Amino acid sequence: MTGKKKSAQASLEAMYRVFTVPEAPESTLSRIDQNISTNLAGFLQEHIVAIERDLSEVEKDFSDPVIPEKPIFVSEQTQFLLDKLVANSVHTASPSFIGHMTSALPYFMLPLSKIMIALNQNLVKTETSKAFTPMERQVLGMIHRLVYDEDGAFYRKWMHDPRHSLGAMCSGGTVANLTALWVARNRAFPAEGSFRGIHQEGLFRALRYYGHEGAAILVSRRGHYSLRKTADVLGLGRESLVAVDTDDHNRIQTDALRDKCLELQKQKIKIMAICGIAGTTETGNVDPLEAMADIAREFGAHFHVDAAWGGPTLFSRRHSHLLKGIEQADSVTIDAHKQLYVPMGSGLVVFRDPALASAVEHHAQYIIRQGSRDLGSTTLEGSRPGMSMLIHSGLKILAREGYEILIDQGIAKARSFADMIQARPDFELVTEPELNILTYRYAPAEAQQALTLADPIQAERINACLNRITKFIQKTQRERGKAFVSRTRLEPARYHHFPCLVFRVVLANPLTTEDILRDILNEQEELAADAGISDEFAILNQLTNTVLAAVDTDG
Amino acid sequence: MTGKKKSAQASLEAMYRVFTVPEAPESTLSRIDQNISTNLAGFLQEHIVAIERDLSEVEKDFSDPVIPEKPIFVSEQTQFLLDKLVANSVHTASPSFIGHMTSALPYFMLPLSKIMIALNQNLVKTETSKAFTPMERQVLGMIHRLVYDEDGAFYRKWMHDPRHSLGAMCSGGTVANLTALWVARNRAFPAEGSFRGIHQEGLFRALRYYGHEGAAILVSRRGHYSLRKTADVLGLGRESLVAVDTDDHNRIQTDALRDKCLELQKQKIKIMAICGIAGTTETGNVDPLEAMADIAREFGAHFHVDAAWGGPTLFSRRHSHLLKGIEQADSVTIDAHKQLYVPMGSGLVVFRDPALASAVEHHAQYIIRQGSRDLGSTTLEGSRPGMSMLIHSGLKILAREGYEILIDQGIAKARSFADMIQARPDFELVTEPELNILTYRYAPAEAQQALTLADPIQAERINACLNRITKFIQKTQRERGKAFVSRTRLEPARYHHFPCLVFRVVLANPLTTEDILRDILNEQEELAADAGISDEFAILNQLTNTVLAAVDTDG
Repeated sequence: MTGKKKSAQASLEAMYRVFTVPEAPESTLSRIDQNISTNLAGFLQEHIVAIERDLSEVEKDFSDPVIPEKPIFVSEQTQFLLDKLVANSVHTASPSFIGHMTSALPYFMLPLSKIMIALNQNLVKTETSKAFTPMERQVLGMIHRLVYDEDGAFYRKWMHDPRHSLGAMCSGGTVANLTALWVARNRAFPAEGSFRGIHQEGLFRALRYYGHEGAAILVSRRGHYSLRKTADVLGLGRESLVAVDTDDHNRIQTDALRDKCLELQKQKIKIMAICGIAGTTETGNVDPLEAMADIAREFGAHFHVDAAWGGPTLFSRRHSHLLKGIEQADSVTIDAHKQLYVPMGSGLVVFRDPALASAVEHHAQYIIRQGSRDLGSTTLEGSRPGMSMLIHSGLKILAREGYEILIDQGIAKARSFADMIQARPDFELVTEPELNILTYRYAPAEAQQALTLADPIQAERINACLNRITKFIQKTQRERGKAFVSRTRLEPARYHHFPCLVFRVVLANPLTTEDILRDILNEQEELAADAGISDEFAILNQLTNTVLAAVDTDG
Repeated sequence: MTGKKKSAQASLEAMYRVFTVPEAPESTLSRIDQNISTNLAGFLQEHIVAIERDLSEVEKDFSDPVIPEKPIFVSEQTQFLLDKLVANSVHTASPSFIGHMTSALPYFMLPLSKIMIALNQNLVKTETSKAFTPMERQVLGMIHRLVYDEDGAFYRKWMHDPRHSLGAMCSGGTVANLTALWVARNRAFPAEGSFRGIHQEGLFRALRYYGHEGAAILVSRRGHYSLRKTADVLGLGRESLVAVDTDDHNRIQTDALRDKCLELQKQKIKIMAICGIAGTTETGNVDPLEAMADIAREFGAHFHVDAAWGGPTLFSRRHSHLLKGIEQADSVTIDAHKQLYVPMGSGLVVFRDPALASAVEHHAQYIIRQGSRDLGSTTLEGSRPGMSMLIHSGLKILAREGYEILIDQGIAKARSFADMIQARPDFELVTEPELNILTYRYAPAEAQQALTLADPIQAERINACLNRITKFIQKTQRERGKAFVSRTRLEPARYHHFPCLVFRVVLANPLTTEDILRDILNEQEELAADAGISDEFAILNQLTNTVLAAVDTDG
């Protein structure tokens, strides 16, 4: 062999090794693998740095756009990932990370995920998934039954019917909502007479044929931003997502919804879909679903419920009544990577009527042929991993009772936390928890009092000042790394809809204790005394004193 | 404590344990975890049954729609999964599984995936992903550079720019194509004068404002089915995906493309996008991308290249020239779970111009705020896992050289397999391999000869018979479980575009040897002699003899 040939042969063999020889037990990666299996909490605690490094600093470690020419050792890459990536990632499983919907996972999810990845199935078709397809159909059936509670005969007939699907597994809630509204749109403009259907001819000709000036999706102001994105993707335009006012509890005003429908109808706008929310992202409230179902029926609109967050509340005998009416929805989104405690990348939508999915059915010659059982014929995505195996396992291992406990204790904890906030004079509970989400802000007692007395301009100035203080506390607390609450902007009616920045708290991690919650409030109180924000407090005091003094004088 | 309270307390503690206590080392799940780490090939070999069980049989194990009331042990569920799910899954990593694009994974991907899942980051925003966001931006930069090869200054300026993104990470190629064409659609109908842009006002008003009768996406007849789905989702309608004829090598006919553009233009149809294919799904061919770029420019259309399969050919010094012109594309789709050998659920799109993604930008109050670095502001999906960590690791550990070897040997192996097929008189190579995909069928020498002499009706009857034989062989071989080739339907010009069923072979697994390929052909020859298909052969012989005898007589 020539030298060149020899080296090519050596490279080829190295490549085979990469596919055939597992990491040695003493390798860096195997040790980490072991470490995660036996002591995940320790691994995360030890390897994720608590104090936040500035992102522009972190970027320096990820700034080379050149794909290296020569392979590096797995151990070298592993060490790099540990030092630069893992160290600067977010401890989402930490019980004091209560700012977002990404939380801790049950331990069994890790080794099960490994089986899923090792099998590397592709759910688009049975030829690359075999038993995973019936399993996914069962998971869709189980969730369908949780929502719609049909009888045994129904599921015997439909669950494995090759020409039907009770729903669609997705990478997350956004794709689930998009799938539901894609179905809704296509059903709103079906084939008729010379018109071959919107799926064939598109929206332009659909509206012309049916004599509409547009098509609208109605949802409360608290609707998830994915719905606006969906309206854009579907060709309706973001303005076709009509935001309806909410009541004081962030639930849609059904009178306003009905009025809006009538108004749109007069403008020849097709009421394509009405979306109820079961667990608003920012405040965790649930729309009056029954009343919405009635309105949807009245206007012949598709009724979709975005229960990405709140869907699993159905497991709770005590709280499931909050979602009453969800069983009247044409489609329901539930995220498995939220309150089903499955790793990131798993959402789903279920359809009440098994025929619904056919509105978006598609086929190809080499896969998802007509009449095949392939789930790919009605999903928006093509190739998909076998995440449903993890949902299946969660539903079996935790069971209804397990999920009920998780839901019940989250809601109870939110109530206790709300009580703690209300017991502290310098905090203001902005939204009461209905599920396990609440919002509050830092607002000294005098400022709260002043706000009840201030004229609109004074109130605006006080609120603007409180916004800067809340933002400072939230950011600094995050940077310190002991705890994390998120922040958002609400427009409370009691402050004349002035945009108020608030702390947002999501209580889904079962390891979050009341002591942790108390510590979070304590740290926020401490931060309020920080020198970095003292100027703001000077301004706030001045504004507050002016209001209170004036009242005093008046009195 | 009362009995009821005690039991509630016990349940609560059980639930805590599920989140805090890892599986014991001797548990069923831990043993499997270990087994997969040390001996994946053995695990798959041992646990996946070779012979296919009928799906309707498998369904019986997944037929209960009831979510169980009481938790079951992890070990019980694990045993169930092993016996019922894993046993009846597909051995996608097998070197004789050469029918689809899902293949073996490098070993290091498994423990790395475990780290990814353990960290459970969410890439929608930096608050739940921190260093994962810069890392994903780097991966997008690396792939962008692989395709567009801009200079260092370009990447220094754009890679980490919070208001820009060089692409979007997706769950797969379908979402990547959809994202690219969503961008294309929104750019085709921007805000102007009183029109606030299609993203705001929708397609109906966009076409009215700009005076178009429709909008078209042009692609060859070999375009992936996801493009038709995309046309539906985007509101254009499936008919707006205009299929252009291909030449004898399954590449788009550029004259026909240009003529079609002119024709559509005359009908006032906006030429929204032209899609080139770099690696057709069924035959692995590459469109003449340079010529297509010229045509796209001529008509002011977005030029998208679907390189979901063939993109990594750019790593090969020998073969990258096949993709010449891809650097002129406005957007390019590449699937990481295909030829970057990353586990299922990872695709991406890159944009030549960093400003492109702004056409689909969106924001919300609690995340992806204006000016944040959050990648979620320009992705179609919301919450997403940190799959880019696995792409990053592949690019570092395999490096350009490693991927080059994988590409080169796949293409070389396809050539050898084509030669083997051509050397056997009873097989017909239907499409020559250009990359690592080819199609062929079983066609006895006499039948092949007869087809060259037959009149159109005779040819149709012979081909119909060959279709049934090819389908039988493909299905039976799959059921036997030793090897798997897929099948699809092509309309070869040489058979007057009559639909012919063919075996389809994808050679991406580096462990597939020439011996394995020989065995696959041998088994197919054996199956052709199977009693189950003898009647078809009787018909075929009769048809063939009629044609040959007539010629003999004529001669």
